[in-house]
Amino acid sequence: MLDKWYVGVDIGGTTIKLAFVTTEGEIVTKWEIPTNTSEDGKHITKDIAIAIEEKCQELEGNKANLISIGLGAPGFINMETGFIYQAVNIGWKDFPLKEELEKETGLSVTVDNDANIAALGEMWTGAGEGASNLLCVTLGTGVGGGIIANGQILHGVNGMAGEIGHYTSLAEGGAPCNCGKTGCLETIASATGISRIAIEKVAEEPTSILQAKLYEFNTLTSKDVFDAAAAGDKLANSVVNEVSFHLGLALANLSNGLNPEKIVIGGGVSKAGDVLLNAIERQFKRFALGRVAEGCEFKIATLGNDAGVIGGAWLAKQNVVATK
Amino acid sequence: MLDKWYVGVDIGGTTIKLAFVTTEGEIVTKWEIPTNTSEDGKHITKDIAIAIEEKCQELEGNKANLISIGLGAPGFINMETGFIYQAVNIGWKDFPLKEELEKETGLSVTVDNDANIAALGEMWTGAGEGASNLLCVTLGTGVGGGIIANGQILHGVNGMAGEIGHYTSLAEGGAPCNCGKTGCLETIASATGISRIAIEKVAEEPTSILQAKLYEFNTLTSKDVFDAAAAGDKLANSVVNEVSFHLGLALANLSNGLNPEKIVIGGGVSKAGDVLLNAIERQFKRFALGRVAEGCEFKIATLGNDAGVIGGAWLAKQNVVATK
Repeated sequence: MLDKWYVGVDIGGTTIKLAFVTTEGEIVTKWEIPTNTSEDGKHITKDIAIAIEEKCQELEGNKANLISIGLGAPGFINMETGFIYQAVNIGWKDFPLKEELEKETGLSVTVDNDANIAALGEMWTGAGEGASNLLCVTLGTGVGGGIIANGQILHGVNGMAGEIGHYTSLAEGGAPCNCGKTGCLETIASATGISRIAIEKVAEEPTSILQAKLYEFNTLTSKDVFDAAAAGDKLANSVVNEVSFHLGLALANLSNGLNPEKIVIGGGVSKAGDVLLNAIERQFKRFALGRVAEGCEFKIATLGNDAGVIGGAWLAKQNVVATK
Repeated sequence: MLDKWYVGVDIGGTTIKLAFVTTEGEIVTKWEIPTNTSEDGKHITKDIAIAIEEKCQELEGNKANLISIGLGAPGFINMETGFIYQAVNIGWKDFPLKEELEKETGLSVTVDNDANIAALGEMWTGAGEGASNLLCVTLGTGVGGGIIANGQILHGVNGMAGEIGHYTSLAEGGAPCNCGKTGCLETIASATGISRIAIEKVAEEPTSILQAKLYEFNTLTSKDVFDAAAAGDKLANSVVNEVSFHLGLALANLSNGLNPEKIVIGGGVSKAGDVLLNAIERQFKRFALGRVAEGCEFKIATLGNDAGVIGGAWLAKQNVVATK
């Protein structure tokens, strides 16, 4: 261990991802530990400190090789103080994450939310590389987002910026969303939303491949829908069109405001690849201003599960630069 | 003239507004000159230089009292180089505005677009005072916008950020917009849009005050609509509701992405005041995330026609700070 590295940490509800990352954004080593949610998550900071210590020993180095820690966590966070108001999946409530982790590790810690650090990772070395105006959308169980403008992640006045999943796509008659509203983009374009729409539509088109699949497995996944669409199934294509229409419209409307250079689509649903990307882009071009569409490129996220730890390292790096 | 002042300049199609502004954002003196659009606008920079020179003499000072110039212009601008690609109303095409004005005045010049400097003015000393995350919307003949995030105006990758007027409100069946799309917010919430909707609706409700007005004056203004709504006219209220629905939905969707502290509504239509503001806010709260709505306050713009010159001065001030 001769070089100086950043530590990127990405805390999720079941695992914590860690990595040592070079100053150029390359992962030296990465590993995971389970998220210990017992006793309201009070052991997590100690677990992270031990994990870092052990990895240093394994690599025959020591903490002097590490510059600082950049960390992403779910929930409501005060980014300046690294204080977690609430993170339901972890158990934290009013938890001084930055302070505790700095105490345990002796390293400086910078905290942001998990969707934001994934966006920062893609900006640094992933699909968004080189762009300082970027929209990142994660289509997973829910729909997450991160907005980068002038090279900075946007937090807004109380940390809520980037909540693209709660863009209201259907002002009237939409499905209920976990946030309490109805008709959010998340109810349509998440894996869950795509599955719901497909199941609702199966009755309309009894000849669809999807009907047989639904009878066999008693459910439909978003992968089923994209596979059937690729095979030319009419119903599946109508679902893909509906989803792409709402994604393209929402992203165009945000882009008429933000004029991004790249839009990066990640998460499980993005594995559908070009079928999805081309369909979204077709709708996007209908609703974006000509010059906005010209300036914008669509990309599938490339870093997968590493986006968070790389973005964490970027965050740590920015903080070192900023405080120098 | 003992103090040091900035010069704010706001170039419009018919007049150029100028002001000397203190380092605290107070206007010392303001005045206007006509916009000379002859010969593709080639005399404009000289006109501005002479106007500044004469005003200095009038105040018994000289150019040494002036720090620098911040200027807003319509059209497509490269903000870094101050180069105007095209400004149709002025006649400029490939015009090096910053370079020419620096040559004529001997002062350093910073250029941005006119909607943006108005937003910066409201942020500095107007309705947005103190907020570093701000949405500004100008409801005039068209619908303009400016977005401030982390205290910076957003330009995006090719200067198109803040085009809130071209948010697509009606994906299908909307009215044609000057931009070439259909159903833009501008076709609904501008003075022109409100007038169009009211005229279209008059046939539906022959008892409306607006019908008599339309017969008398052969047109309806947005002021007519708001006056009739305040007087309880059913048709006028349905127009106000339709306009507010689309404004509230668009602003909520942008706010779910940007999480602003304030939304400032300006322009001629904003003279309707609380009737308009309350109606927009009611719709906004339906479509914004709870925490986004909690963090956000609606305000009518307070600087009127002075917003541009004050914002110009702010721009000049930032540039001095940045280059020091």
